[in-house]
Amino acid sequence: MNNQTTININGKITPKEDAKISIFDRGFLFGDSIYEVTYTTERAILFVNEHLDRLYQSANLIQMNMNLSREKIIKEVLKTLKAANIDNAYIRIIVTRGESEISLDPTQTEQNNFIIIVKPRPIYSDELYSKGISLKIVSVLRNDAKAINPSAKSGNYLNNIMALKEAKDYGYDDALMMNKEDYLTEGTTFNIWMIKDNCLYTPPVESGLLEGITREKVINLCNDNKLALELKNITEHEILSADEVFITSSTRGIMPVFKINDKIYSEKSTLQKISNLYKELVLKELCLAKKHYTY
Amino acid sequence: MNNQTTININGKITPKEDAKISIFDRGFLFGDSIYEVTYTTERAILFVNEHLDRLYQSANLIQMNMNLSREKIIKEVLKTLKAANIDNAYIRIIVTRGESEISLDPTQTEQNNFIIIVKPRPIYSDELYSKGISLKIVSVLRNDAKAINPSAKSGNYLNNIMALKEAKDYGYDDALMMNKEDYLTEGTTFNIWMIKDNCLYTPPVESGLLEGITREKVINLCNDNKLALELKNITEHEILSADEVFITSSTRGIMPVFKINDKIYSEKSTLQKISNLYKELVLKELCLAKKHYTY
Repeated sequence: MNNQTTININGKITPKEDAKISIFDRGFLFGDSIYEVTYTTERAILFVNEHLDRLYQSANLIQMNMNLSREKIIKEVLKTLKAANIDNAYIRIIVTRGESEISLDPTQTEQNNFIIIVKPRPIYSDELYSKGISLKIVSVLRNDAKAINPSAKSGNYLNNIMALKEAKDYGYDDALMMNKEDYLTEGTTFNIWMIKDNCLYTPPVESGLLEGITREKVINLCNDNKLALELKNITEHEILSADEVFITSSTRGIMPVFKINDKIYSEKSTLQKISNLYKELVLKELCLAKKHYTY
Repeated sequence: MNNQTTININGKITPKEDAKISIFDRGFLFGDSIYEVTYTTERAILFVNEHLDRLYQSANLIQMNMNLSREKIIKEVLKTLKAANIDNAYIRIIVTRGESEISLDPTQTEQNNFIIIVKPRPIYSDELYSKGISLKIVSVLRNDAKAINPSAKSGNYLNNIMALKEAKDYGYDDALMMNKEDYLTEGTTFNIWMIKDNCLYTPPVESGLLEGITREKVINLCNDNKLALELKNITEHEILSADEVFITSSTRGIMPVFKINDKIYSEKSTLQKISNLYKELVLKELCLAKKHYTY
């Protein structure tokens, strides 16, 4: 693990070797927690409001009481970033339902546990952005929204872990998951997009996915720039017949996909256009972030 | 929390206030862990082999490497029980995939974290065994086996937590969950049984459930005692038309259900018979356990 990792546990900057949580924390016992990941560029936090909106949405979806205000979270994130003193940082914010007797009953807790992990932002190689990644459509289905709603970014990640394991076992970089109706949902940590005949397609929320912040930004970019876009259920056959495919995620932005199963995608013209628009948007966001969320 | 709780972390008896785990443990980050709950009667561990079989089955289902032998686990459980010095104890055994960098990739860990929690066995009132509990068939569906297999007893319990929350919100003791095909699966921490015209019914593993150890014992008791039994998919309509309903779980044994949704069950004759047979079986198990697994 990286030595530059800085940890904040319930408001206290804590050395890594002491960064521990009670085994009675419900996050540990049951995965009863929510989280967000965002990052900084040149000492400014990007898209912090969007990530906090989603954190509270996750809390809402799993009916978790939040004793934490947005102001408190931002204050503690900035404090952790200052302590870490890294220009380009990865930020993970974890909130658990707190400690309780060993009981599934979620009403027995009083106080959230609140953890922030800051470390150097991972650097993805130029090759990943020029060539892209390989994906396998795996046999592991995405959690059904009526069982565990994928729109809540929670501590229940075994579904994604097993999907990634299956893809890696076959030599792929990552996994794409379907739902029970045989439609694509999302990857293990990203949303999926395809382009066919100059129109962009991405699965709708109803397919069972996390509403990615980058996904939302790209939807807006398409609308603002009059690019043809449709949110629709996508079959395996459809994505394997697409002209271009890419993924979106907060940490990776827009990254091309060069292969799904045995299908190779070599075309990148539309995704290049989107990618440039997204880079412009990030620069604008950076200007705003530098005014409000620096350390 | 109970003061008599005794905790063993990786072989070390640890005071409760120090009973902590790294925030980089995958059990905390992702619910990437498995567990078992069993208990002791008169200082003997009951059904320990069955629980260890299932622990290794859970590890297998989520492809978790186990650096722990059965002998080591039993040795540490006995050590913890001795330290706790409780005659009738609750035992929780948790094994996580260990600590890693923050990555879903499960192959990056080397060493499991291994936790045992021992505390006084909860006492369920005589009323619960004579009258029974109330259950609500909730809108939360049980995890689909192709997404997260309910046969693995893992640290991903948000599904069950949300189901219990829904049932409690409506004033019921606990929840029953259906699968996507509209068949009953199981409760949040127990298997479900119904009796109709003197025949016992319980859902098959394929409906998506944890193969309860008490469930298995009751199946065997039915076969040994020539009681009519069928493992079959059960609809909501069928269970609401049943003569008797009960639940099975390791900690509760056999417990009647007096109500599901608005339906009241007052008949208890067949379940009384099963309950008596089960009590005899537990006494036999206790004799065996006293020879091999005492502290």
